[in-house]
Amino acid sequence: MIEIGRSKRAAVVYGFDDIAIVPTRRTRTPSDVNLTWSIDALSFEFPLVAAPMDSVMSPATAIEFGKLGGLGVLNLEGLWTRYEDPTELFAELAAISDPIKATRRLQAIYAEPVKGELIAARMKEIRDAGVPVAGSLSPQRTREFASIVEKAGVDFFVIRGTTVSAEHVATSEEPLNLKEFIYALDVPVIVGGCATYQAALHLMRTGAAGVLVGFGGGATKKTRNVLGVEVPMASAIADVAAARRDYLDESGGRYVHVIADGALGKSGDIAKAIACGADAAMVSTPLARATDAPGRGWHWGPEAWHPRLPRGERARFDQVGTLEEVMFGPAVTADGTMNLVGALRKSMATCGYTEVKDFQRVEVVVHN
Amino acid sequence: MIEIGRSKRAAVVYGFDDIAIVPTRRTRTPSDVNLTWSIDALSFEFPLVAAPMDSVMSPATAIEFGKLGGLGVLNLEGLWTRYEDPTELFAELAAISDPIKATRRLQAIYAEPVKGELIAARMKEIRDAGVPVAGSLSPQRTREFASIVEKAGVDFFVIRGTTVSAEHVATSEEPLNLKEFIYALDVPVIVGGCATYQAALHLMRTGAAGVLVGFGGGATKKTRNVLGVEVPMASAIADVAAARRDYLDESGGRYVHVIADGALGKSGDIAKAIACGADAAMVSTPLARATDAPGRGWHWGPEAWHPRLPRGERARFDQVGTLEEVMFGPAVTADGTMNLVGALRKSMATCGYTEVKDFQRVEVVVHN
Amino acid sequence: MIEIGRSKRAAVVYGFDDIAIVPTRRTRTPSDVNLTWSIDALSFEFPLVAAPMDSVMSPATAIEFGKLGGLGVLNLEGLWTRYEDPTELFAELAAISDPIKATRRLQAIYAEPVKGELIAARMKEIRDAGVPVAGSLSPQRTREFASIVEKAGVDFFVIRGTTVSAEHVATSEEPLNLKEFIYALDVPVIVGGCATYQAALHLMRTGAAGVLVGFGGGATKKTRNVLGVEVPMASAIADVAAARRDYLDESGGRYVHVIADGALGKSGDIAKAIACGADAAMVSTPLARATDAPGRGWHWGPEAWHPRLPRGERARFDQVGTLEEVMFGPAVTADGTMNLVGALRKSMATCGYTEVKDFQRVEVVVHN
Amino acid sequence: MIEIGRSKRAAVVYGFDDIAIVPTRRTRTPSDVNLTWSIDALSFEFPLVAAPMDSVMSPATAIEFGKLGGLGVLNLEGLWTRYEDPTELFAELAAISDPIKATRRLQAIYAEPVKGELIAARMKEIRDAGVPVAGSLSPQRTREFASIVEKAGVDFFVIRGTTVSAEHVATSEEPLNLKEFIYALDVPVIVGGCATYQAALHLMRTGAAGVLVGFGGGATKKTRNVLGVEVPMASAIADVAAARRDYLDESGGRYVHVIADGALGKSGDIAKAIACGADAAMVSTPLARATDAPGRGWHWGPEAWHPRLPRGERARFDQVGTLEEVMFGPAVTADGTMNLVGALRKSMATCGYTEVKDFQRVEVVVHN
Repeated sequence: MIEIGRSKRAAVVYGFDDIAIVPTRRTRTPSDVNLTWSIDALSFEFPLVAAPMDSVMSPATAIEFGKLGGLGVLNLEGLWTRYEDPTELFAELAAISDPIKATRRLQAIYAEPVKGELIAARMKEIRDAGVPVAGSLSPQRTREFASIVEKAGVDFFVIRGTTVSAEHVATSEEPLNLKEFIYALDVPVIVGGCATYQAALHLMRTGAAGVLVGFGGGATKKTRNVLGVEVPMASAIADVAAARRDYLDESGGRYVHVIADGALGKSGDIAKAIACGADAAMVSTPLARATDAPGRGWHWGPEAWHPRLPRGERARFDQVGTLEEVMFGPAVTADGTMNLVGALRKSMATCGYTEVKDFQRVEVVVHN
Repeated sequence: MIEIGRSKRAAVVYGFDDIAIVPTRRTRTPSDVNLTWSIDALSFEFPLVAAPMDSVMSPATAIEFGKLGGLGVLNLEGLWTRYEDPTELFAELAAISDPIKATRRLQAIYAEPVKGELIAARMKEIRDAGVPVAGSLSPQRTREFASIVEKAGVDFFVIRGTTVSAEHVATSEEPLNLKEFIYALDVPVIVGGCATYQAALHLMRTGAAGVLVGFGGGATKKTRNVLGVEVPMASAIADVAAARRDYLDESGGRYVHVIADGALGKSGDIAKAIACGADAAMVSTPLARATDAPGRGWHWGPEAWHPRLPRGERARFDQVGTLEEVMFGPAVTADGTMNLVGALRKSMATCGYTEVKDFQRVEVVVHN
Repeated sequence: MIEIGRSKRAAVVYGFDDIAIVPTRRTRTPSDVNLTWSIDALSFEFPLVAAPMDSVMSPATAIEFGKLGGLGVLNLEGLWTRYEDPTELFAELAAISDPIKATRRLQAIYAEPVKGELIAARMKEIRDAGVPVAGSLSPQRTREFASIVEKAGVDFFVIRGTTVSAEHVATSEEPLNLKEFIYALDVPVIVGGCATYQAALHLMRTGAAGVLVGFGGGATKKTRNVLGVEVPMASAIADVAAARRDYLDESGGRYVHVIADGALGKSGDIAKAIACGADAAMVSTPLARATDAPGRGWHWGPEAWHPRLPRGERARFDQVGTLEEVMFGPAVTADGTMNLVGALRKSMATCGYTEVKDFQRVEVVVHN
Repeated sequence: MIEIGRSKRAAVVYGFDDIAIVPTRRTRTPSDVNLTWSIDALSFEFPLVAAPMDSVMSPATAIEFGKLGGLGVLNLEGLWTRYEDPTELFAELAAISDPIKATRRLQAIYAEPVKGELIAARMKEIRDAGVPVAGSLSPQRTREFASIVEKAGVDFFVIRGTTVSAEHVATSEEPLNLKEFIYALDVPVIVGGCATYQAALHLMRTGAAGVLVGFGGGATKKTRNVLGVEVPMASAIADVAAARRDYLDESGGRYVHVIADGALGKSGDIAKAIACGADAAMVSTPLARATDAPGRGWHWGPEAWHPRLPRGERARFDQVGTLEEVMFGPAVTADGTMNLVGALRKSMATCGYTEVKDFQRVEVVVHN
C-alpha cells in the first residue's frame, strides 16, 4: 500500500505488460505438455474459451472452435438472436470506417429486440454439430431468457457483464439473485467479470462453476477513460486465485475455475494469465484476426453499442490466417497472434512445466 | 518520502492517469445514483462546475449550463467584459491556426481594458435567465472589481488564479487580504487553485465556501515546462481533502467544499477526482468540445494570453455534440468526452455506490 | 519482492535501458585501458563475441572478425551448412520487405537439411585462415552433429538455444545430458541462454567454459509477446554473476565466463553488461549494420524461421560502415552503433577503470 | 538502494522530468524576486551562464549576453580560435541536413589547430566591450593554453569536459594536476562536469570557485547510448549540493558554487535545478533558439565533432526570437523556451520565495 495523498492509500497493481515469466533450471519438450482442461463434466483439449462477442463467435465459428477442441460461447444478446440472418449487417458494418458513424450504426442495429426463438434455434444449431454448447446473457436480461436457454440445452450458461456482483442492489426492479438463480438452474454457470478478491469470493459462493476475471477484453482501456474503473489483469487474477484457494477451504473442496477475460491480445498474455493463477483464458482479439471471423477484420464488444454511454470502440485488425491457423499455426507472424496453443505449450515447456495447474506457480518478475 | 539525492527528499505523487477505481463486491443500478450537489444555499443536479474560460463560458452557455442543472462561471476578465460584442473576435481567433500568431493575437485582444459596466451587464443577463449566477476574478484584480460584482448580485464569487494563497506578500502594493475580504463580502466565495494540505488549510480559514484544487485545466503541463511547478491532481485532491477534514474539526463543523480544477478531460477523471476526495469538479475541456461552445473548437485559459509569459496554448478539439449531449448523452464516442453525468452515474453504480460523499471512500489502485 | 496480487509475489527486474553507469572520482586515459579477454587457452583483443546468426556471421565475416581480434561464431544450422553456396538466397531475402512473405520464405529456405560435410568444410575454411574457430548448434541437434564438429577441430563449441537447461526432461526421446556430453568433449563449451541464478549454476556444473546470459538478441521482445517469457538483461547478468562467484567457491576455483547475449544494440549496452558482471558480450545487431555483413541490412536469428512458431522477425537496419569501422571507428554516428571497442575503452576510462574485471564493480544507478 | 540482481545493488535516481516543484502556502509578487548572483568578485543580474558551445557563444553573443546581465563563456577550442573568421563555416554547416554528412564535416572543420593568438584576440574583444570575460578549455588542453588565457585577462577560467576529475591517472603523459594548477592561477576557476558527491567534493578541494554538474547539455542521452554513462540531473545536483555543504564545513567556510550544466532545455528545468540545490545554471539549448545565435538554428557541443567517437549530434531547433527576448520576453511560446528570467522570477514568486538561496529548499515531488 502506498499513499496517494494524506487522506487516501492505494495498492500498486500490475497488468500483463508489467510482468514476465522466468524459466526455471529445467526445460521440457513441448509435445510432453498436457493442456487438457476439465471443468464440470466436460474436458477440452486446451484451456481457451472463445469470447461471446459478435465479431468473433457466430454459430458457425462456435462450432468450428468446438471442433478444434475448445469452448466457444455465443452472445445470446448479439446479432444472431436479434436477426434471422445478420450476414448483410456484418458486411455493412465492415464497410464503415468512421468511428462515430460506426457507433451510431451499431446503436441502431442493436436496437432490434432479442428474440427467444432465435436463442433456441442458435443453441440447437450448435448442439446438432456435436460440440459443447454455451451461450451468454448479461445479468440484466438473464432472468428474461434463462428458461429459454435452459430448455435449449446448453453445457454452460455464461452470465457476463462489465462488472457482475453477487449482491446487486436496486430500488426500481427486483434484481437477479445470483445464488438462487444458479441453485435453481440445471446447467453449470460461468459468471463475471469481477476483479477483486472480495467480489470473486462472493461470486464463488453463488455456486458458479467458473468466474470470469476482468471487464471484457478490448474495452479495458475505454472503461478506464469513461468510468475511471480498471483493475490490471495480472493483479486481478492473482487476487481472484487467492479467493479460489480460500473458497476451496471454506467450501470443503469446491474448486471454482478462474477464467481470465481481458487484455489477452497475445499468446504471451495467455501464458501470463495462467502464471498468475488462471485455470483458463477467454480470448477474443486473436480470434477476431481469423479470416473466418464474423467481424471481417473488425472487433467489438457489447459495450461498443450501448445506446447512451458506449465504452468501447470497434477496433481494426489485420486478418492473419484461418481460425485453425490462429489456434494451431503454422504462424507466419512473430507477435503472439498465431498458434496460440503451440505458444502456450512452448512457453510451459521452456520453463520446465508440463501441467497447467503447476504452471500457475511459475516465477514471474515485474519489469517497469 | 524518497531521496532525490543526498541533500533532497521528495514525496511521490500521482495524477489521474496513474490511478484507477476498483469495484467493490456490490453493484447498483445507475438510476438509483443521487448526484445532487448542495453548496451554501444552493443545490445542483450534478457536482460539476463549468470553468470560467472564454472558450467555454459565455453568458449564453453559462445560462444553458445552469438550465441543465449545473453551475456555470463566467470569467469577468475575459472577452465578454472587455468588449461589448466579442463575437467577431472569437471567429477571428478560430481562423488562426499557427500557435505563435495565435498567442500574439490573444495578447493584443486581451490588452483591451476590463469594463465595470460590462461586468454588471453580463451578470444581470445570467440572473435574468433564472439560473445561478457566478463570476470569477483573478486575485490581482479582485479588489478593483469586487464591489461591482457584489452589487450585480451573484450567487458565487470565484477568485481563481494559477496559485492563490491566503498569505500573499508584496512590497510595492497592498496585497488582497483574503480573510478580511471574504468576511466583508455578502456572497459565498470559491477560491483557488491550491495544491497542498497547508495552502488549502489556510484558504479554508479565510471563510471560503469552496476551494479549487489544481492550477487550471489544460495549462498543467505547460506550467510544468515554464515554471517547473506541478502537483498531480490525484495526490493534490487527497491532500486537500485531508485539510477539509482537519478544518472541519478545527472550525467546529464548517464543511468547505473541495472542487477539483484541472486535468479533467475525460469522464473517468471526474470519477477519479471524487474517488480521491473531491466534492465537485470544475470542468472545461469536455465542454470546449460542444458545438455550441464559444471557442468554436478551440480551447484556452487566461494563462494563454499573458502579455510577457504565456503558460498555456490554445488547444484544438473536435466538436462532438451539443452541450446537452456532452453532459447527458447519448454519447457517440467511447473516450469519456460525452455523457459526463451518465458516466459518473454508471461509474458509481458499477462500484456499488449511490452517494457522492460515500464514493469518496471507494478503493483506488496505482498502476504505473 | 513485491506483491502482484494476494497469491503471487515477484521480484522487480531491470534491463539495460533502466540503468546507467556512474563515474567515480577518478578518470583514466582511454589508451591505458586493457580490454584483453582470456578464456580457456585463448586470448582476444577485446571481450566481444560475434553471434552465430546468418545475418552477421558467414565464414568470411567470422574470419574477418577473428583477424580484428575477436571471436566469431558460425551458426552450424544456418544457411552455410544447408547450402553449398547460399549467396543468392541472401540476395533474394534482402529483396523481400513484407514481413509475412519474408517469414514464409525463411521457413521454406531453412527447411533444407543441414549437411555434415558442409559443417566440416566451413570450420576448415575458418581454421585455414589462422583465426580462432567456433561453431554453434542448438541443443536439439548437438548430439547429431557433435562428432563432426569435434573432428573438424574447433576452439570453442557453442550450444545456444532460447533457453538451455542442464536438466532437460523429455519422454519421447533421450535428451542431451549436458554434463556427460561436455565431459566427453575435447573442446571447451560455451552454453546458453540462461537467465537466472539457478539455471546458470546448473549450467556451470556441467563443466562449461562459459555461459550465455539471455534469450538471444533481437528476439527478446518477441519472446515476451509469444511466450510471455523474459528476464531483462541487467538483472539476469547480475544474477548469473552471483552464480559464477558461488560456483567458483563450490568448485574450488573454476572460473566460468559470463557472456551477455542479448539486448546489446548500442556500445553503451556493452559497457552496462560488464558493469553488471559480464566477462564478455556476444553482439549481433551492431555487426548487422556493417556494409560487409551477410544480411545486407537485414538481421534475423534462428527464432525467425521456426516452422510453426516463429518468435522473431527480420529487422531492417541502416548500414553505417565496414565491420572494421563498426568495431574500431572512426564513428560518424553518435548512437552507439560504431567504434564499439573505442566506446568501451572510453566508458571505462571516463569512470576511472583500466581493467574489465574491475569495471564489473563500477557503480550503477536505476533511472525509471 | 535497490537490488538489480543478486550481485549488484543500485541507487534510484531522478531527472528534471521526474520531479516538480510544489508551491507553499505563501505567494509573492514576481517583481520582488531578487535574482542577483554573486560569485567571486563579480555580481550578475541573474544566475545563468551561457554555455561555451560554438552554436551559442561567439564573441558577439558573449558580449550581448554580458550586456543583458549574465556571464557568457566562449569555447577556446571552438571555431573562433581555430579560424580568423569562421562565419562562412557556420553558414556551410547550417546548410547540411544529413546527420552523417554533418558529423564528417564537423570532424574535418574542427581538425584545424587551435591558435594561441586567436584565443588572446577573442578574449580581448570581449573585455574591450566592458562585460565579464570567461573562456573554457578542455582538461586535456588546459596546460597548453592556460598561460595565454591568463595573460589575456579573464574573469573566469572554465575547465569543462564530459567528466572532469580531480584525480586523472595516465601512464603516457603527465596529467593535469588540478589542485596545483588552480592554486597557481590568478583567476577563479569553474570546473566540471561532475555528477556525484565524491567527484564534486574532490573538485571542490582543488580550490575551484564553482563546479559544473552534468555531462554537457544536449549530449546526455547520446552519452548514455555510447558510453552507458549517465547521472540524471536532479539527483546529481542534490548530491553535489550535499558536497558543497560538507566542504563548506570541512574548509571552514569556503562556499563553492554549484552550477547545473545539462538537460536545461526549458525554463522550468532551470527552476528545478535551483530547487535541487544549484546556485546557478549553465544554459545552451534555449540560447541556440535565438535568432542571433551563431548556430543558425542548429546546436552542437564539442562531443559532436570527436574525430573517432562522436557522442552527440547537431540538433535542429526553431528560432523563436532575439537573445534578449529569449532571456526577458515577451514570450510568444508557452513551452518554457522564452523569457527564461521572467519564468524563474514567476516560479519563485508563485512558490512564495524571493531569494535564490532560499528557493534551494522549496519542496519538490516525484511524479513517475
